[in-house]
Amino acid sequence: MTVSALRMESDRAAALDILAARFGSRFSRGAEIRRQHANTVNWMANQPPDAVIFVTSTEEVAEIVRVAVAHHVPLIPFGTGTGLEGHVNAPFGGISVDLSQMNRIVAVRPEDLDCTVEAGVTRRQLNEHLRDQGLFFPIDPGADASLGGMAATRASGTNAVRYGTMRDNVVNLTAVMADGSVIRTASRARKSSAGYDLTRLLVGSEGTLGIITEVTLRLAGIPEAMSAGVCAFPSVDDACNATILTIQSGIPIARIELLDTLMIRATNAFAGLGLPETPHLFVEFHGSAASVEEQAALFGEIAASFGGGGYQSTTRPEERTKLWQARHDAYFAARGLRPGAQVIATDACVPISRLAECVHETIADIAETGLIAPIVGHVGDGNFHVQVMIDTDNAEEIRAAEGFLARLSKRAIGMEGTCTGEHGVGQGKRRYLELEHGPALAPMRAIKAALDPLGILNPGKILPD
Amino acid sequence: MTVSALRMESDRAAALDILAARFGSRFSRGAEIRRQHANTVNWMANQPPDAVIFVTSTEEVAEIVRVAVAHHVPLIPFGTGTGLEGHVNAPFGGISVDLSQMNRIVAVRPEDLDCTVEAGVTRRQLNEHLRDQGLFFPIDPGADASLGGMAATRASGTNAVRYGTMRDNVVNLTAVMADGSVIRTASRARKSSAGYDLTRLLVGSEGTLGIITEVTLRLAGIPEAMSAGVCAFPSVDDACNATILTIQSGIPIARIELLDTLMIRATNAFAGLGLPETPHLFVEFHGSAASVEEQAALFGEIAASFGGGGYQSTTRPEERTKLWQARHDAYFAARGLRPGAQVIATDACVPISRLAECVHETIADIAETGLIAPIVGHVGDGNFHVQVMIDTDNAEEIRAAEGFLARLSKRAIGMEGTCTGEHGVGQGKRRYLELEHGPALAPMRAIKAALDPLGILNPGKILPD
Repeated sequence: MTVSALRMESDRAAALDILAARFGSRFSRGAEIRRQHANTVNWMANQPPDAVIFVTSTEEVAEIVRVAVAHHVPLIPFGTGTGLEGHVNAPFGGISVDLSQMNRIVAVRPEDLDCTVEAGVTRRQLNEHLRDQGLFFPIDPGADASLGGMAATRASGTNAVRYGTMRDNVVNLTAVMADGSVIRTASRARKSSAGYDLTRLLVGSEGTLGIITEVTLRLAGIPEAMSAGVCAFPSVDDACNATILTIQSGIPIARIELLDTLMIRATNAFAGLGLPETPHLFVEFHGSAASVEEQAALFGEIAASFGGGGYQSTTRPEERTKLWQARHDAYFAARGLRPGAQVIATDACVPISRLAECVHETIADIAETGLIAPIVGHVGDGNFHVQVMIDTDNAEEIRAAEGFLARLSKRAIGMEGTCTGEHGVGQGKRRYLELEHGPALAPMRAIKAALDPLGILNPGKILPD
Repeated sequence: MTVSALRMESDRAAALDILAARFGSRFSRGAEIRRQHANTVNWMANQPPDAVIFVTSTEEVAEIVRVAVAHHVPLIPFGTGTGLEGHVNAPFGGISVDLSQMNRIVAVRPEDLDCTVEAGVTRRQLNEHLRDQGLFFPIDPGADASLGGMAATRASGTNAVRYGTMRDNVVNLTAVMADGSVIRTASRARKSSAGYDLTRLLVGSEGTLGIITEVTLRLAGIPEAMSAGVCAFPSVDDACNATILTIQSGIPIARIELLDTLMIRATNAFAGLGLPETPHLFVEFHGSAASVEEQAALFGEIAASFGGGGYQSTTRPEERTKLWQARHDAYFAARGLRPGAQVIATDACVPISRLAECVHETIADIAETGLIAPIVGHVGDGNFHVQVMIDTDNAEEIRAAEGFLARLSKRAIGMEGTCTGEHGVGQGKRRYLELEHGPALAPMRAIKAALDPLGILNPGKILPD
């Protein structure tokens, strides 16, 4: 954040008055609304904005940006507030731009397998809308996040191993830039070599380069057949190695999720699955009926060669749903391991050849630190999550957790990986970017300064001070 | 290009003297070498640099950049010189940085399905190296281009419909930035949400934001089975509509190429294929033996429903090779339509729902303009190429061709497409960027100014004046 953004409070007050008059009941300074528009999902501080505006159009966002520029007021885009790294916090105050009322599905084009939605449309809303047309949007980060927020954080999730992440599935974006201009980042063509890839630059920029107001997304056809299964492994190493071989074998697996022993225990308790208490892979295959059967059989052979047991696949929707509901509920299941504790959900991602080693070392680290922290992972991408359950009233535990989180990020980076595969940087991971990117931080800073010279867009996020 | 880059000739001469002394026999001012390092592939002017340096390491490139910065000398990265839009021309003089001697394959990691190569490694060199390991790099733009050049132009080609373009297949890049710093754009993790996507920003930046010296690429396993076939259609519309339905049906087709009637005539003459003189689709399927058979059968049904005839698929390698050799030789075959003529190879890309309409209108335009211009296309992506054969001594023909090219770009943009799906902007398409991007040109310019304030990196490319 530049010094200029810290102008006199009186100036900020003037901006708020202008916007209050302009937006009427859609402008709020209420304490509870402000609190809800800062981080509420984990142990990180709740840093509320000065005000919240519920916008209904791209043009309104542009209006707000112009006022914010004139008065040097920070703007923090808000979708559903489910970001895990303090993305929506307002450490310098400012205005939360709530896009949840921009929830129109602008166009669905089955013939092009794409759609255009306003930024506040959530992925469930979109998928409910699409179902009748035999289409779906495959990116599933767990939470029912807004698609604008998912683009802004470069979200992915369980299906990414087959369908890619938001990086791969955004065709173009409409965004309001820090000068108040409205851009569309690209055409609707599937590929283009016409100039700099502003789409990919904004995807993952967490509201620090522009405010995304509309998203055009690739869609997929609902597969003719789906098959799912669970498989128990003697160890995390075996489960990881079975994953590696599955990917190397070119099986187009749609989901392959690791749950470590502790997470299986939690899930058994929460969802009554009755699985043996060892590491498991949850898998899913998409394709034609014949292809799904072939994939499942090949995976079964690979799993067996690593001691995988009890593997059965099913195409019955109710069994698949129960299984994936249990996986989706892992967050809540984990909370059951320590009722009343606060959850820190963190993630890391490494080249798949280092996955077994990284997960193995992480579990040893957890044991040594004495934390309660189950692991789930989108292991087909080398991506895994640790849910650290802590008592936030216990300073020693917080210190222990912080030490663990730092070691995890450094371990992943040291294995040619990244400190975050899908959660984003926000406030929580800023401190690791220097280690991960080194000299590449300089062009990132230069781009930020060029596109947001006043530093009004989501200050205090991504780039370290 | 900023005015500052047009400093006194004496200053540029000083820089050349410094670099001549430093690089000895790897520095050349020879007229023929300079000519070869500017555009030689089509009708566009040959605008040679002042000198050529054959570099052997990233550090040498950084040294050159530092001298170029100090003396405001333009630098033009050079791979194989196969770019089609004047990418390697030196309209303001300067130094061609020839990366062809940086041709080491640094690492192949079968366990991660990736590899790291120096920028001068060509795709054939890489694929020959990989073959024994059961792996391949799927992006195939036709020419045996360097992988650094392919990254710089966001190349794609026949396989992109299944495997994606360079945008999707570059894991990270090493690049020398305009301040002489060396960055690596990302880790080797398959996905990351840690900061701005510099990889995708440099992919397609055509040497205007940094000089790519090393590339880490995703690899694919050589499929267990491949099957290919040709299918004749009554009209281009039928061929395009069969393509659209194939994509919508979710068939994971590996290649689907349109050749219009004129191109079939040329290919018959050149390669002796003996195909009926109507539009054709050339297709290829990759997967397991069973999956390939299933895909081919499904495609056959779709093709038949659009009047497709004579469709036969084959898994025999020699037949597949003959077919795809004919497709690859389309450029040379087209030349046979008008011996002695110069070829303008251009491309455009539209949402697939607009493909039939766009190709149809383009063929009508060609007929009306009186040009000889066959069409081939990677139609699964909505991308097609027109090869305009002209007599460059005939001013009227040049004017007619220019008019056609402008209408083609505008037509594609008007159909929510792009003026170039894979060739890049270079010098040739700069004039259409304003129409295609509108207000989004401003952030592109801001990024260029931020990362290359002196404008020394490949000036006169991509961004219009």
